[in-house]
Amino acid sequence: MVSLFKRNHCALALIALCLFQCVMAPAATRRAAGPNFVILFADDLGYGDLGCYGHPTIRTPNLDRMAAEGMRFTDFYSAAPVCTPSRAALLTGRLAIRSGMCSDTRRVLFPNSAGGLPAEEITLAEALKAKGYATACIGKWHLGHLPQYLPTRHGFDSYFGLPYSNDMDRVADTELGRAIFLEPKIEYWRVPLMRGESILEQPANQATLTRRYTEEAVQFIRQNRTRPFFLYLPYTMPHVPLFASERFSSQSARGLYGDVVEEMDVSVGQILDALRRDRLAGNTLVFFTSDNGPWLTYNEHGGSAGLLRDGKGSTWEGGMREPGIAWWPGKIKAGAVSHELASTLDVFPTFLTLAKARIPNDRVIDGVDMSPILFGAGRGQREAFFYYRDTELFAIRKGPYKAHYLTQTGYGVPKPEKHDPPLLFHLGHDPSETHNIAKSHPEVLADLAQELERHRRDLVPGKPQLDARLEAN
Amino acid sequence: MVSLFKRNHCALALIALCLFQCVMAPAATRRAAGPNFVILFADDLGYGDLGCYGHPTIRTPNLDRMAAEGMRFTDFYSAAPVCTPSRAALLTGRLAIRSGMCSDTRRVLFPNSAGGLPAEEITLAEALKAKGYATACIGKWHLGHLPQYLPTRHGFDSYFGLPYSNDMDRVADTELGRAIFLEPKIEYWRVPLMRGESILEQPANQATLTRRYTEEAVQFIRQNRTRPFFLYLPYTMPHVPLFASERFSSQSARGLYGDVVEEMDVSVGQILDALRRDRLAGNTLVFFTSDNGPWLTYNEHGGSAGLLRDGKGSTWEGGMREPGIAWWPGKIKAGAVSHELASTLDVFPTFLTLAKARIPNDRVIDGVDMSPILFGAGRGQREAFFYYRDTELFAIRKGPYKAHYLTQTGYGVPKPEKHDPPLLFHLGHDPSETHNIAKSHPEVLADLAQELERHRRDLVPGKPQLDARLEAN
Repeated sequence: MVSLFKRNHCALALIALCLFQCVMAPAATRRAAGPNFVILFADDLGYGDLGCYGHPTIRTPNLDRMAAEGMRFTDFYSAAPVCTPSRAALLTGRLAIRSGMCSDTRRVLFPNSAGGLPAEEITLAEALKAKGYATACIGKWHLGHLPQYLPTRHGFDSYFGLPYSNDMDRVADTELGRAIFLEPKIEYWRVPLMRGESILEQPANQATLTRRYTEEAVQFIRQNRTRPFFLYLPYTMPHVPLFASERFSSQSARGLYGDVVEEMDVSVGQILDALRRDRLAGNTLVFFTSDNGPWLTYNEHGGSAGLLRDGKGSTWEGGMREPGIAWWPGKIKAGAVSHELASTLDVFPTFLTLAKARIPNDRVIDGVDMSPILFGAGRGQREAFFYYRDTELFAIRKGPYKAHYLTQTGYGVPKPEKHDPPLLFHLGHDPSETHNIAKSHPEVLADLAQELERHRRDLVPGKPQLDARLEAN
Repeated sequence: MVSLFKRNHCALALIALCLFQCVMAPAATRRAAGPNFVILFADDLGYGDLGCYGHPTIRTPNLDRMAAEGMRFTDFYSAAPVCTPSRAALLTGRLAIRSGMCSDTRRVLFPNSAGGLPAEEITLAEALKAKGYATACIGKWHLGHLPQYLPTRHGFDSYFGLPYSNDMDRVADTELGRAIFLEPKIEYWRVPLMRGESILEQPANQATLTRRYTEEAVQFIRQNRTRPFFLYLPYTMPHVPLFASERFSSQSARGLYGDVVEEMDVSVGQILDALRRDRLAGNTLVFFTSDNGPWLTYNEHGGSAGLLRDGKGSTWEGGMREPGIAWWPGKIKAGAVSHELASTLDVFPTFLTLAKARIPNDRVIDGVDMSPILFGAGRGQREAFFYYRDTELFAIRKGPYKAHYLTQTGYGVPKPEKHDPPLLFHLGHDPSETHNIAKSHPEVLADLAQELERHRRDLVPGKPQLDARLEAN
């Protein structure tokens, strides 16, 4: 009787232990790890395109609210003025020149490209996955569409989205020319929608992409509400060709471009709502920004850099300075506005630090931890910012000063203009880069020249990934 | 005894009645009249110069809060691209062409001008004074500095400020040239500070003007807290030469221009605080805007029109579209953003309607009542807006469409360029006026041509006031 009681007792204890583990395990995992991370990454959105950045007519109440509940950056930079190198830098914390994800011959990857993000690069997803995070890439990838380069080979548990830009893999029709961008139809492009490593739909129904990305993202959040997760959501829009779903069509005073941005804004709201609904808001850091500035050559179908000069493709401010909004209720002070210098390069070390993951020390990481800015503990740690156009360093910013060694309009001009002495602007006094003050500030130029020299000394360019082409069928 | 008692009783009743009247009269006056009105009018402030309009570095927490507690306009226009005609229009509700307050030879009034706002014009101050309002003009006048044109002759009980712009009445020093604007010193200008009709100080100590205007304004509010009042506060800044008081000097990341705007922002905060302190916030409509766009030719000493084209002096959007913020806690919905078309011309009929004053019917009033916009009851009543440069109609806006018949950069180009057919822009799709769509929208051009014709039919230009000069001493 005693032994039976003992045995029963033991069995009960075992059952209790199992139950305890089942209930507590996810919570214990969560406690051991850091917060959840969400990156909301627009495509070709301009500095001036959101209500909270001064756009007169595009309505972005959800992003405005995100800013009002979080921190809005005024001096936040994407690491490159075009898509592929910008995304490579975001996910690795390294300038694209180091990973080889830029080139002098092709600015981004194309459907006939044979290259992609090298396996030896460590992505944010890989580093977080190693710490037990669930990871998903939902949206546009553009770091290589051959199987060995897909998100699933770079640390993402799952992938749903386009492998490259939505204006690629275009149906041949020379007669229509640029008009197909200004009055876009789904059938003009053959761009595929993928799940994992398979094509799900071709051509992708672009008008439903933002909605479907959102649904996938909300489902991912819901499924992973009891364990730490990293959601990377690079929207396909507002890159041309522009497509809005029916509900948003012809709703915006800004025309189709506004429709598309307003649909993305609602998507952002739905994702924040999903986090609130699952009581994850207090344990999730969400960051919103864009890959590069507005594609001005597409007229009304391109966005606006506000008071900044030029746009996508260029190392003038409009090409690389972006809206940047960080949100983490209870941790980031509501309504904060930061004028500190920061970049998409900084996301990598910031997230890894918060996740208590090791930052790789076998390679140069160009990012610095943004935590002191986000949590109000001090000044940013970023001393300087380097503006690369493809493989060339065009400009440097240090403090409020920016020196241009080379300048070139984003698109339409074949060669850069060299400046010796460089052009010098005080971005505080002159954010629009209109008054060259090089003559009166030789000491600043000398300091920036030293910065340039230091940067070049330790720079080892990676093996070029954007030049190799698939053999034609 | 009885009669004495009766007499005493009567006396007591009389005393009580007197006391009652003393105590109640102001409240009764208040109830009979409308709310208090305050106009905060910046000088040469650009559309992009406030935090809530997207400026990256100028800190304007008080104006941002005013917008968050009130209504922010995205499509608000000053009635002229330069000072004198803009102010004449604001105070009369009439285009300057009707009052003669514009000219082909001189764009504004100068210290040697003999003219000013004609006595037969009815100003907002006159109309409100007739309804029992206390009225004060504190700041820059610029509608005539001869005694017969001063604020005290145009309905203002009191006046404290400069009679014209702070860059006028300059000490002759041709050697310094433009440099005196870029490194301004008080003694470079002889501009007087006036109280009533007398000169109080010459040269005015410009570095203390914003502070002194604020003190005068707060005192006026305090003194009139028991009766309805109209406070007109046209700041002298940020018109060049720029001067900030010691407390604000070298504080802004935007340099001296930022210092000056940030000092004005603090002034706005102090005025709203004074209204709150005296429990007048719920009964006072405050409107903030500027006379015209930024003076771009002064480099870093001029402001920014954000994404809008050109600045002061021009009929491109940057010259006339302005920040516009309306504040009336409890009456105007907090955080509202209005995209309705509205103008400084509309202030006159709006205030008079709210004050239950008669709107003059013996002359053309170009303004329309903004109440439906402010109180959320409906769409704005303004159908079109007419862009005058001096005496010439350069452009028309109707709905989102704007046709330019003439264009000319604000400064530096001697003659306008004629356009036939006119340039046509869709300001919703293309707020920066970069893509002329005239060819594809002949029906819009035809409609706007009709609008132009209607406008010209009833236009009777007033007697010119800006050409006459004082005889040289």
